[in-house]
Amino acid sequence: MGDEVEGFAFEQSHGKSRVRVARLWKGQDGRHFIVEWNVNISLLSNCIPAYVHGDNSDIVATDTMKNTVYVKAKECSEQLSMEDFAIGLAKHFTSFYQQVTTAIIKIVEKPWERMYIDGQPHQHGFKLGSEKHTTEVIAKKSGALRVTSGVEGLALLKTTKSGFEGFIRDKNTILPETRERMLATEVTASWRYAFESLSSIPTKPLYFTERYVDVKKVLLETFFGPPKEGIYSPSVQSTLYQMAKAVLGRFSNISSIQLKMPNIHFLPVNLSSKENPVIVKFEDDVYLPTDEPHGTIEASLSRLRSKM
Amino acid sequence: MGDEVEGFAFEQSHGKSRVRVARLWKGQDGRHFIVEWNVNISLLSNCIPAYVHGDNSDIVATDTMKNTVYVKAKECSEQLSMEDFAIGLAKHFTSFYQQVTTAIIKIVEKPWERMYIDGQPHQHGFKLGSEKHTTEVIAKKSGALRVTSGVEGLALLKTTKSGFEGFIRDKNTILPETRERMLATEVTASWRYAFESLSSIPTKPLYFTERYVDVKKVLLETFFGPPKEGIYSPSVQSTLYQMAKAVLGRFSNISSIQLKMPNIHFLPVNLSSKENPVIVKFEDDVYLPTDEPHGTIEASLSRLRSKM
Amino acid sequence: MGDEVEGFAFEQSHGKSRVRVARLWKGQDGRHFIVEWNVNISLLSNCIPAYVHGDNSDIVATDTMKNTVYVKAKECSEQLSMEDFAIGLAKHFTSFYQQVTTAIIKIVEKPWERMYIDGQPHQHGFKLGSEKHTTEVIAKKSGALRVTSGVEGLALLKTTKSGFEGFIRDKNTILPETRERMLATEVTASWRYAFESLSSIPTKPLYFTERYVDVKKVLLETFFGPPKEGIYSPSVQSTLYQMAKAVLGRFSNISSIQLKMPNIHFLPVNLSSKENPVIVKFEDDVYLPTDEPHGTIEASLSRLRSKM
Amino acid sequence: MGDEVEGFAFEQSHGKSRVRVARLWKGQDGRHFIVEWNVNISLLSNCIPAYVHGDNSDIVATDTMKNTVYVKAKECSEQLSMEDFAIGLAKHFTSFYQQVTTAIIKIVEKPWERMYIDGQPHQHGFKLGSEKHTTEVIAKKSGALRVTSGVEGLALLKTTKSGFEGFIRDKNTILPETRERMLATEVTASWRYAFESLSSIPTKPLYFTERYVDVKKVLLETFFGPPKEGIYSPSVQSTLYQMAKAVLGRFSNISSIQLKMPNIHFLPVNLSSKENPVIVKFEDDVYLPTDEPHGTIEASLSRLRSKM
Repeated sequence: MGDEVEGFAFEQSHGKSRVRVARLWKGQDGRHFIVEWNVNISLLSNCIPAYVHGDNSDIVATDTMKNTVYVKAKECSEQLSMEDFAIGLAKHFTSFYQQVTTAIIKIVEKPWERMYIDGQPHQHGFKLGSEKHTTEVIAKKSGALRVTSGVEGLALLKTTKSGFEGFIRDKNTILPETRERMLATEVTASWRYAFESLSSIPTKPLYFTERYVDVKKVLLETFFGPPKEGIYSPSVQSTLYQMAKAVLGRFSNISSIQLKMPNIHFLPVNLSSKENPVIVKFEDDVYLPTDEPHGTIEASLSRLRSKM
Repeated sequence: MGDEVEGFAFEQSHGKSRVRVARLWKGQDGRHFIVEWNVNISLLSNCIPAYVHGDNSDIVATDTMKNTVYVKAKECSEQLSMEDFAIGLAKHFTSFYQQVTTAIIKIVEKPWERMYIDGQPHQHGFKLGSEKHTTEVIAKKSGALRVTSGVEGLALLKTTKSGFEGFIRDKNTILPETRERMLATEVTASWRYAFESLSSIPTKPLYFTERYVDVKKVLLETFFGPPKEGIYSPSVQSTLYQMAKAVLGRFSNISSIQLKMPNIHFLPVNLSSKENPVIVKFEDDVYLPTDEPHGTIEASLSRLRSKM
Repeated sequence: MGDEVEGFAFEQSHGKSRVRVARLWKGQDGRHFIVEWNVNISLLSNCIPAYVHGDNSDIVATDTMKNTVYVKAKECSEQLSMEDFAIGLAKHFTSFYQQVTTAIIKIVEKPWERMYIDGQPHQHGFKLGSEKHTTEVIAKKSGALRVTSGVEGLALLKTTKSGFEGFIRDKNTILPETRERMLATEVTASWRYAFESLSSIPTKPLYFTERYVDVKKVLLETFFGPPKEGIYSPSVQSTLYQMAKAVLGRFSNISSIQLKMPNIHFLPVNLSSKENPVIVKFEDDVYLPTDEPHGTIEASLSRLRSKM
Repeated sequence: MGDEVEGFAFEQSHGKSRVRVARLWKGQDGRHFIVEWNVNISLLSNCIPAYVHGDNSDIVATDTMKNTVYVKAKECSEQLSMEDFAIGLAKHFTSFYQQVTTAIIKIVEKPWERMYIDGQPHQHGFKLGSEKHTTEVIAKKSGALRVTSGVEGLALLKTTKSGFEGFIRDKNTILPETRERMLATEVTASWRYAFESLSSIPTKPLYFTERYVDVKKVLLETFFGPPKEGIYSPSVQSTLYQMAKAVLGRFSNISSIQLKMPNIHFLPVNLSSKENPVIVKFEDDVYLPTDEPHGTIEASLSRLRSKM
C-alpha cells in the first residue's frame, strides 16, 4: 500500500464526498418506501502519472463517480439495504476500472421514519427521526470485502444508577467520588461483519437493515438495564464494555465492534457568594449540562480469530 | 420604545444567551422526570448612563441573570411547563428590579424522550428525539404578558400527492409544471396564546406542555392527510395555510400562528451526455435532495380581534 | 401590511434562500476580480389565491427567482458593489411583476481576499479571510428604497484596558468587580444609509464597497483605541455606544447603526481541592474561554430625523 | 497494542476533548501576547479492570486531565509554541502515571492576530483570522516522540490557470474536458517532523511557530505560482503533489507531509428553457459555487527512510 515516486514513498486516493441521493419505491398496495443517502466514495487506483506528470489518462473523474451513484440507484428496482447498495457500488468501481484496486464506500442515511396518523402507518408520509444509520464497505479487486455498519448521534441519558469512585487521586485531582450522578453520552458505534467476500453476503434483501435495528436494541438494553430497576454503571468504561460484549455475544456473524461514548457532563449546580454562602445547593436536582469539555471513552472488542 | 440620547434616538437591551439548565424530579413511584432547557434572557431597562457615561449602577449583570435561572430552577419543586418557567423568570426580572421595564425569555428544550424497553417505559432512561419545543415570553412591568410557544426542526416529507402548476411563466422561467413531486420541509411554527396577563394563565401545571403535543398533532395531520389517501397539495403555500387555519380552528385560546416552511427540494435526476443521451431517466424514482438553494414560504394567520 | 382572509388577518411572503453565485471580471492588465455571494430573496406580493384556493396564477416561482440572480449577474459587465447588485435585483422584482409590492434582498459575501506573494498582489489568486460583508435592500413598487450594509463575524479581543464595576449587587450576584479583564466579542453591525430612492444612490460603482471598509475601520479604531495606550472600557455597553456614535459622527449619509456585541467570556482560572488549596491561582495569565453562556449587548443609534 | 480480555481482543483509550485554555504573556515593553488553544487529550493506559470489573483504581479521571492543562499553562512563564506545550503535556502524562503507556495530545489554535491601527501594531488588541494552526504529539513512556504540525481551513481559489483533460471517458462520463476553470479548495495539511525523542527537539522557544509560517508560505507559493503569471494546474492531483514535494524539498527535518485538498466546485452557469434556448450562456463569468458534492483528493509524501 503505497508507491515509490521520485525517491519518496507516496500514498493517494481520490473520490467524491457528499453525493446525496434519494430512492423511492412504490409497493403494490400503494405504500411508498423511501431512503435518503449521503454517499462518500474513495478509490485507491493506479494513477501516479496524474500526480507526477499531469497525465490524467488513468483518472476516474469524480464527476463520473457521482453519476454512477445515480445510475446504480436507478438500477435498484427493489428495495435494498444501504449496505447492499454500498457493496454493489464498490464492486462496480473495482471491476469496471482496471486502474482501481480498492473502493471505499461510506454512506450515512437520513432517518426518515414512516409517519403514524391515529395509530395507522401513513402510505407516503415520513418524519425525520434522530440517530443515523451508517455503513462503510471496502472492496478489493481480488473480491475481498469488508462490511461495517454503525450508528451515530445516538444520544442517551440516565438520571441515576451511575457513579464514579476509586479512581487515581493526585495533586491535580479535584473531582469528588460519587455513587449518584447523571450519565449522558452520544454513542457512535460501528460493527464489522464476518463476511469476507461477495459470495458470503446474505441474500435476504433487507438483512443488514434488520440487523441494524437488532444491534441498536441490544446496545440500548445494555445501557439502560431493565425498565424498573435499571443497572448500576460504575463508569462509562464499564458500561461501554458491557455493551460491546453483549453485541458480540448475541450476533455470531459480527466479528468486532467499536464504540465511542463521550461522557457528556451534567455538572451539579452549587452557587454561593461572600454575602450569601448558599444561593443554590445541589441536591440531585439542578444541573448544568455542557458539551465542552467532555470525556472521551473509546474501545473496540473483537473476536480473536478476526484479523483487523 | 427608545430614548433620546445626546441628540440621537437610542434603543438597547442586554441579557444572557445559551444558559443551559437541567431539572430533575423524582416521582413517588421511582419514576424520574427530566427537562433540559437552553435559556435566553433579554432585558429592556433604564440604564442609559452605562452606555453614555460608563456608570454601571443601573445594570443587572448578565452573570446575575444566569444565576437567577439556577435559583428559579431550584425553586421548582414540582414539574412544570417550560412556558410557566419562562413566565416565572420574566416576572422576577420585571418585579425585582426597578430598572427593568420588559423581560424577554426564550427557551429551547432538548427533546429527551422516555426510553421504552420491551414496550415498558423506563423509570430513569431517556433518548434524544428530533424536533424541539420552543417558547418566548414577553412580560412588562405593568403585568402585561405575551406567551408564544412553538416547534422547530420538524422535518416532514411526503412522497406523492404534491404538485405545482399554473404559476407565472416569463423569460426566466424554467421550472416545468407538475402534479407529481416530493414535498419536503422543515417546519418552524410559533403560536401565540390569547392570555394577556398573569392572572389569565391556566393553573394546570403542564397545560402548555400538553398543548404543544396537541398543536403538533394538528399540524402533522393537516400536512399529511389521512393514512390511506393523503391529501393533495397544490403548493407549499396552500398546505401552510391549511395548517395555520386548522390550528386556529381547533384551539380557541390560540390567537395567532406563524409558520415557516422552506421548500426543501428533491430534484428529479436525469443524466445524459453527447455520447449517451439517456444515462439516467427520471421516472419518479431517483432524486437529488438538496438544502441549497431552497424556497422560503412564511406566513402568519391571526384572529382579527387580536392586536399584535 | 397584511390582508383579511376568511375572517383572519393574514401576512405572507415567499422567496428563495441560499442562492449562491460567483462573478468573475477580468481587467485589461490581466488582473482578475471575483465576488462570491449568497443571495436571499423574499417577495411580498398579491398572491392570496395560492394560499386560500390553490390557484398559483399570481405566484412567481422561487425557481424563477433563482434564475434571475444568474441573469442579473450575467448582465453585470463591470465590477459593482454587492449593494448595487441587490438594488438592481430588488428593482427587477418590483417593476417586472405587477403582483410584487416589496422585494427584500439579503446578501452575504464570502471574504475572498487577493493573495500576496512576496509582497506582490497576485493577478488571479485569492484566499479566504474572516469577517463577512452583508447587505439588505428593501425596495417598494413606489420606488422607496432602504439600503443597509453590515459586517458579521468580526471577532475582536483586547487583553487589558477593560473592567466592569459598580453594577447592581443583590442576593443572586456573585460576579466580583474588576478593573482588569479580557474583553472579547464578535461584532455584528448593520448601518442604514440615508438614501431613500433609486435616484439618490451614488453612481460611483464601488461606493458601498469602499464605505464598508471605512466603517469597519472606525469600528475597529474605536474598539481598540490608539496602538500604544489603548482605551479603557468600563463595560461592553459603553464601548458599543462609542463605536455607534463614532460611525454616525464620521459618515453623514449613514442615518442609523445597530450593533450586537455579545460578551464572550474569558473566565479566570482558579483551581483548588480539599487536599490542595492552590492548584492554579489566577494572576491575569490563564483563562478559560467559553462561548456558552455569553452576555448579549445590543443597541441601535439613529439620527432623530430618520424615520425607521 | 491491544489486550486479550475474556477471550476477546480489546483496545481502548480515554481522555478529555475540547479543553479550552488561553494564556497571556506581558512583554517588558507593555506588548501583550496571547494564545487560545483547544486541547484534546487521549491516553493509552493499563486500566482493563475498569472496563471488565468496574474497578477504577487505575483510571486517570478525565477531569484531572483537564485540570492538568491549566496547571501546565500556568507553569509557562515564557511564551512557547503550541507544539512545545503539547510535548510538555504528553511527557507529564507518560512519566507521572505508571499506568499510562502513550499520550496523544491534539491542539487547534484559534487564530488571534495582532491588530494594526494606522499601520502600527497594537499593544494588546487582536482580531480573529481565518485558517488554523494544528498539532498532534504522540509520546510513549519509552521517550519516543512523534510531532506533527498542520493547518486546517486554508481556503484558496484561483480564477484561471487550471484545467482538467484526458481523463477516462466511459458510459457514465458527462464532464467536458477543459483548459479553463476555477480551482478552489480548502487545504488541510499535516507534516511530521523528523525528531523522534525529547532530546532532539529544537530548544528555540518559538521554533515550531516560525516553521508553521514557513511551511504555509511554501504551500501558498506553490499553489498560486508567481504573482504575474501564476502556474497552470492540470489537476488537483498534480498541484497537491507539487505542494507536498516543495515542502519536503525545502525543509530537511520534515519527514513526511499529508495533504487533503477537496475540489470545491464552481459550476459554469448555463440556463435555457424550451421557450428561451439561451437565458444565461457561460463565458467564464458566472459560476455556481457549491460545497456539495465535492471531489476529495488526498495524498501523503514521505522520505523513504522514515518509518510511519
